[in-house]
Amino acid sequence: AEATAARREAALTKPAGALGRLEDMSRWRCAWQGRHPPRLERAMVCVFAANHGVAKQGVSAFPAEVTRQMVANFRAGGAAINQLCRAMGAGLRIFEMDLDRPTEDFTVGPAMTERDFTEAFAVGLGAVDAGTDILGLGEMGIANTTAAAALCHALFGGEAAQWTGPGTGVEGPGLARKAEVVARAVARNGVRGGDPLEALRAVGGREMVAIAGAVTGARLARVPVLLDGYVCTAAAAALARAAPGALDHCRVAHVSAEPGHRMLLARLETSPLLDLGMRLGEGTGAALALSLLKGAVACHEGMATFAEAGVSGKSESD
Amino acid sequence: AEATAARREAALTKPAGALGRLEDMSRWRCAWQGRHPPRLERAMVCVFAANHGVAKQGVSAFPAEVTRQMVANFRAGGAAINQLCRAMGAGLRIFEMDLDRPTEDFTVGPAMTERDFTEAFAVGLGAVDAGTDILGLGEMGIANTTAAAALCHALFGGEAAQWTGPGTGVEGPGLARKAEVVARAVARNGVRGGDPLEALRAVGGREMVAIAGAVTGARLARVPVLLDGYVCTAAAAALARAAPGALDHCRVAHVSAEPGHRMLLARLETSPLLDLGMRLGEGTGAALALSLLKGAVACHEGMATFAEAGVSGKSESD
Repeated sequence: AEATAARREAALTKPAGALGRLEDMSRWRCAWQGRHPPRLERAMVCVFAANHGVAKQGVSAFPAEVTRQMVANFRAGGAAINQLCRAMGAGLRIFEMDLDRPTEDFTVGPAMTERDFTEAFAVGLGAVDAGTDILGLGEMGIANTTAAAALCHALFGGEAAQWTGPGTGVEGPGLARKAEVVARAVARNGVRGGDPLEALRAVGGREMVAIAGAVTGARLARVPVLLDGYVCTAAAAALARAAPGALDHCRVAHVSAEPGHRMLLARLETSPLLDLGMRLGEGTGAALALSLLKGAVACHEGMATFAEAGVSGKSESD
Repeated sequence: AEATAARREAALTKPAGALGRLEDMSRWRCAWQGRHPPRLERAMVCVFAANHGVAKQGVSAFPAEVTRQMVANFRAGGAAINQLCRAMGAGLRIFEMDLDRPTEDFTVGPAMTERDFTEAFAVGLGAVDAGTDILGLGEMGIANTTAAAALCHALFGGEAAQWTGPGTGVEGPGLARKAEVVARAVARNGVRGGDPLEALRAVGGREMVAIAGAVTGARLARVPVLLDGYVCTAAAAALARAAPGALDHCRVAHVSAEPGHRMLLARLETSPLLDLGMRLGEGTGAALALSLLKGAVACHEGMATFAEAGVSGKSESD
């Protein structure tokens, strides 16, 4: 299917490669869907929401109850992700991950037990419908950029402060405290440079584990995935550290304004599709990137070939 | 209208600024449309096509007749821009600029007479319908990246080779020859650092003059504009050099793989909305960026406010 896609791209009325990453996206989706032409009727965005014990350390600009309030907003159709899914013709499913049972404060010990981890992973695995043409992943969870920073610090080393950003809007002394919390969490749990999934259990959150589960489930079902921002990519990065190539079926939809995300993408040696200074989470970047895929599909399927249009090819003399 | 848009963005259920450039796009369009909410029902892409006398210097990988063949492909609905406009719900108008009368070879003398220039400018001015909500501009013309490089070299100085790229696929000795043609054109016409519109007449093309006309017409009609790639932005840059702020109603939709485009955006101190390695022209980047505007409008209009959704605001303590 990938080869068929590549042959068709070469025959369409444009210089070879002139549609850039739109062409890559068509080949990529054909390869993972195992079919040509690639299909984009059933796009789905799954958003996982969870609460974090570390929120009590004052690492977020918003109070912890906002997680539940935003879930209600998702269900009522009032959040950004609702509008973007509607505009892109994508389905939206919201997964509440034990909101009344925050993870443990990981500055004290592991965020989750092994059982918590397994349950959350299973939610993600089960969220993937094999009939989905493309899956966008997103999250909501007050304090989860702290978890993402801790996880990246554990997986990739460096300084805690490099991975720590303002999240929803923490500045000045609050930001320094957040970096200190990140450093303390990783040290306390002894997860730096250790087993990646163990790091995810120790300093991650339930929504992040569910995202790792969904990425895995999509791989098994051959569903291509659009990852969203910092928290989402950090969760997926645990899989990449555990097994090289584990994210070959994924593309990163956008690079967040959260500074750690750009660093993380460099470590993963991948480029985002969009760079618009967004930092909202909820899968908003993934949903927006669906529109690029729509454009790619429209060109791949609808364009005339050189032969059909009677357009001369490249001069041999040049 | 811009202030109303900004007030609404601040009240929506997301951290302030978390939708990044989507928020900027809503404010920008309100400011130029002079209305709130911004409107996106009537999106239009105008593509100007012209032939270039400099094509006889062997600066393109494709023969000159491809301009006319591609115009036929546009009319038949088989080109990339047709698929993208259809996918984005945008209208498409094609303007043939005297295809049977190529401009003069500008390595010998000015590409256009003053009358040619005025006529082409008028076509662009007249292409703007005041009822348009957003206007995308694009072009088609074999050899026109040579004209764009010459114009940028004239407007911004530097070395001719820095502004010269492969276009549709010129490599090796062909690329060196193209750079030499660019240098010779600018020297022969004596337009380096001179009057910007005179440079556009001397080393530009009819489609580029028409784009400058359309940018001007849109300004007068308060229609926000999405510029496409290297050739389109170079044409608009002549206006910016002539009158600072002349492009305030424009955004650059994408940065082309053509290396001169990134340099040009740096000189114009602007950032593209998309960076996908595209280098097709035809307005394809502008059409694709319309999908981002759709997302921005959907969020701006459809999202609940904090008050409506009962979501707690930012903690004062942080």
